[in-house]
Amino acid sequence: MIDAISFTNGTLRYLDQRFLPLQENYVETRSHMEAIEAIKTLAVRGAPLIGVAAGYTVILGLQSYEGTKEEFPAYFDRLIADVEASRPTAVNLFFATAKLKDLFKAHYAALSLEALFAAMNAAAVEIHNDEIANCDNMSRHGVELIKQDLAETLKTRKLTVLTHCNTGTLATGGSGTALGVIKLAWQEGLIEKVITAESRPLLQGLRLTAWELEQEKIPFYSISDSSSAFLMQKGMIDFGIVGADRIASNGDTANKIGTCAHAISAYHHKIPFYIAAPVSTIDITIDNGTQIPIEERNGDELRTIFGTQVATPTTPVINYAFDVTPNQFINGIVTDKKAVTGNYSQELQKLFT
Amino acid sequence: MIDAISFTNGTLRYLDQRFLPLQENYVETRSHMEAIEAIKTLAVRGAPLIGVAAGYTVILGLQSYEGTKEEFPAYFDRLIADVEASRPTAVNLFFATAKLKDLFKAHYAALSLEALFAAMNAAAVEIHNDEIANCDNMSRHGVELIKQDLAETLKTRKLTVLTHCNTGTLATGGSGTALGVIKLAWQEGLIEKVITAESRPLLQGLRLTAWELEQEKIPFYSISDSSSAFLMQKGMIDFGIVGADRIASNGDTANKIGTCAHAISAYHHKIPFYIAAPVSTIDITIDNGTQIPIEERNGDELRTIFGTQVATPTTPVINYAFDVTPNQFINGIVTDKKAVTGNYSQELQKLFT
Repeated sequence: MIDAISFTNGTLRYLDQRFLPLQENYVETRSHMEAIEAIKTLAVRGAPLIGVAAGYTVILGLQSYEGTKEEFPAYFDRLIADVEASRPTAVNLFFATAKLKDLFKAHYAALSLEALFAAMNAAAVEIHNDEIANCDNMSRHGVELIKQDLAETLKTRKLTVLTHCNTGTLATGGSGTALGVIKLAWQEGLIEKVITAESRPLLQGLRLTAWELEQEKIPFYSISDSSSAFLMQKGMIDFGIVGADRIASNGDTANKIGTCAHAISAYHHKIPFYIAAPVSTIDITIDNGTQIPIEERNGDELRTIFGTQVATPTTPVINYAFDVTPNQFINGIVTDKKAVTGNYSQELQKLFT
Repeated sequence: MIDAISFTNGTLRYLDQRFLPLQENYVETRSHMEAIEAIKTLAVRGAPLIGVAAGYTVILGLQSYEGTKEEFPAYFDRLIADVEASRPTAVNLFFATAKLKDLFKAHYAALSLEALFAAMNAAAVEIHNDEIANCDNMSRHGVELIKQDLAETLKTRKLTVLTHCNTGTLATGGSGTALGVIKLAWQEGLIEKVITAESRPLLQGLRLTAWELEQEKIPFYSISDSSSAFLMQKGMIDFGIVGADRIASNGDTANKIGTCAHAISAYHHKIPFYIAAPVSTIDITIDNGTQIPIEERNGDELRTIFGTQVATPTTPVINYAFDVTPNQFINGIVTDKKAVTGNYSQELQKLFT
């Protein structure tokens, strides 16, 4: 079992993901400054996992507090500010700090510092447990959907599934979103093997997902992203499942660049293609995917690979970090509440009422 | 103007492509053994260019011959065998040696060595000139097709074209197949810019095509292969054109892995997608693409990049070097004889009668 992050007896333990899969460095720390550095340097990465790490980092900061109750508010403010500055665009990080700030506001006056710290400790653990529970729920709903949609194929053989980027323990702290579904489907004997698309430019599929699958002893092959269409043509893929960065109210889904290409090919070859993401990923305030801003990142992500220059530094590059998959190419959106199919505009709305 | 290969006053000059785009090393040699080494080590690469290089390499071997006419057949046999062993799977190399062997058989008895060598020299130059002429003819036919298919768009603005892998001077010795068409279209003012897909695993698009376009001062951007679908969705690509390794009689086309994914996305977004390849690429003896054997190459091509390890050496990889694009996704096949559209099974046959 991979231990991406854990907190025991006041010590944070995390896997430094920067050198995976070539080096597996587990780090233990009781210093919140070291934990902040780990988030900053991407040693700990993946949206939900950053939220979990942020919660525990605040707890580390509380543990080393030696001042009075009167001096604590100023210390807490600086601690929160330091944690929030570690990765200022990570939404989950701010969910975590907001939860702890709410606790502070609600209970600072009435509780002793010891009792307040205990409540915050419990809240940080809850953030982590919620992620684990979300993953487990997604996995159950996803497996039900697969059993239903692929019932005919499952009568004769196990399935080969395509996935993209990393959506597992390394990203969530739980079993994963899309990769969580795949792991449970594997445990239930539905899966023969996984095809993990390498996910250029940063190769999360080739590096991280491949490593997780190897740890879990689930058979897999890595491929170049552009191979998926040909493998589908050859009948080598039965379904696809990926995560999401943001889902519009009509089901259009922003996810790691490359997702849309897989989904179009799957649609053309009549292969089911699913999204797995917690309800918190759904942005019910926007009508469709055109309203999702797509980050363009530095072209050096293509021009250099692991520090090795492959193109000249002046080579012009278009490097969208995400793309938008139109809802017509998505056969189901697996959330922690339920798996949604059919008319997404109607069905996703129901998750919020 | 890029000089991928040239032969002047008995000296072969070639661009060592191995370190492009980071180093531009032009090499001059009068030694056929050095020229053979250049083919072996992929310093000279690209199917048609290898054929051109093979012709000139034999001429270098003739230049250094100092024996009698009687001793020459044995020397010539060994010379041809050495050249053919340099890249035993390169079809164009064997076209070139066959042409020179035919000349030997036809004229050895009647001609002086001097006259025989002169005839062979002319034949080697002809191989090169034929490639240049093929490229020029493809370019003309391709530009006509683009003008016709994209007439409406061209009334209001210039075009953005997607291409894949390298199909230019570096591959052909002429202006190129698909890239030759693009260059002429640019000269005629039809093109605003080129989008060159990087072409994992070996990055010929990011390295070689980008370099060629920079030399030609044609505006371009490199992208990850899996970005093309999203760029099409955003209206950023007007048409696609790529080369071919082998075309079946029904128009199904084997080309560098990734081509099929671009073509499916183009089809879905109603964007024309073309193949450019000489008639010699068409295998009229096979009915369709399922009969084209597709080479699977060593997984290290994905696991390491420019010598840098990115995945563990044991990561299982599926690495098809080529894929097959079904004819339904191809809007035209541009050959040196004409641009073929419509019913490929009928129209390609006509090129051979």
